[in-house]
Amino acid sequence: MKFKVVFHLDWDDESALIMGLNNITNMLAAISSEAAEIHMVANGESIRLFREDLTLKYSETIKELHDQGVRFCLCNNSMNKFGFKKEQMLDQCEIVPAGIIELCKLQNAGCAYIKP
Amino acid sequence: MKFKVVFHLDWDDESALIMGLNNITNMLAAISSEAAEIHMVANGESIRLFREDLTLKYSETIKELHDQGVRFCLCNNSMNKFGFKKEQMLDQCEIVPAGIIELCKLQNAGCAYIKP
Amino acid sequence: MKFKVVFHLDWDDESALIMGLNNITNMLAAISSEAAEIHMVANGESIRLFREDLTLKYSETIKELHDQGVRFCLCNNSMNKFGFKKEQMLDQCEIVPAGIIELCKLQNAGCAYIKP
Repeated sequence: MKFKVVFHLDWDDESALIMGLNNITNMLAAISSEAAEIHMVANGESIRLFREDLTLKYSETIKELHDQGVRFCLCNNSMNKFGFKKEQMLDQCEIVPAGIIELCKLQNAGCAYIKP
Repeated sequence: MKFKVVFHLDWDDESALIMGLNNITNMLAAISSEAAEIHMVANGESIRLFREDLTLKYSETIKELHDQGVRFCLCNNSMNKFGFKKEQMLDQCEIVPAGIIELCKLQNAGCAYIKP
Repeated sequence: MKFKVVFHLDWDDESALIMGLNNITNMLAAISSEAAEIHMVANGESIRLFREDLTLKYSETIKELHDQGVRFCLCNNSMNKFGFKKEQMLDQCEIVPAGIIELCKLQNAGCAYIKP
């Protein structure tokens, strides 16, 4: 069995991001990364948490999890709304056209949904 | 592919409602309304946000989205608990017997779940 | 039709637990317990809410719902992180190895997800 899951962030709330990163770390400690397909989708104000110039304690964790295959997706609608450019964000992030559509597609493809 | 989704509200938190309405507006800008099946289910204290006498900035948005086929469902258990009557709520709202049962049915029918 | 659902808690927020318990009570008033398969999965700091020595107003509700077949699952990773032992928690709780994995498995097995 492959564990497919998408974590959803939308508020500018560092504690929710850290909760999500801990969740993913625990998952990958319990199962091999080959048995997991893990996505994090951020829309709304939560995209601020992924700015590269915020040298925060969790950016290293994001890099490590990305190396293990975790996708970090930022909503392009939200990027435009708040005036962010791709080069301002952590390199590990991928821009998706609309976060909500991504969440629909992933759940439709069999991912469990988790809101930290 | 049809995008089927249910947005869930439960707290009396205007910012969560506005986030959800923005999410839906973005969805309908990205895909045609024919390709979407969108529900919003409110239970618990969140039903207060749909009172008609609150002439709030978002009631116009609810009317516009409803015209595009979005369903707004209020939980009848919560209506009774807080002593609200259907005629006090925005006309665009539909009363469902139990919000949680509606959420189960919709997910069972293939809707993605999103909690703003 | 069987209504299968998992409620997810992660923050140390009594009001979210009470919302979830009300949701379940309403469900079981609307349908028979035979037609329902109901789980509550707590991880992160939310596990504190299930300590036995907290003689809180909702512990009786948990017992009644458990008698009707509702499962209450606590994440063992979180138990270890916060230094709790099984015997400190309400008897009605079951310890699962990883709350997030449990949430994935249950959704994969057809449970709707609800985050109060």
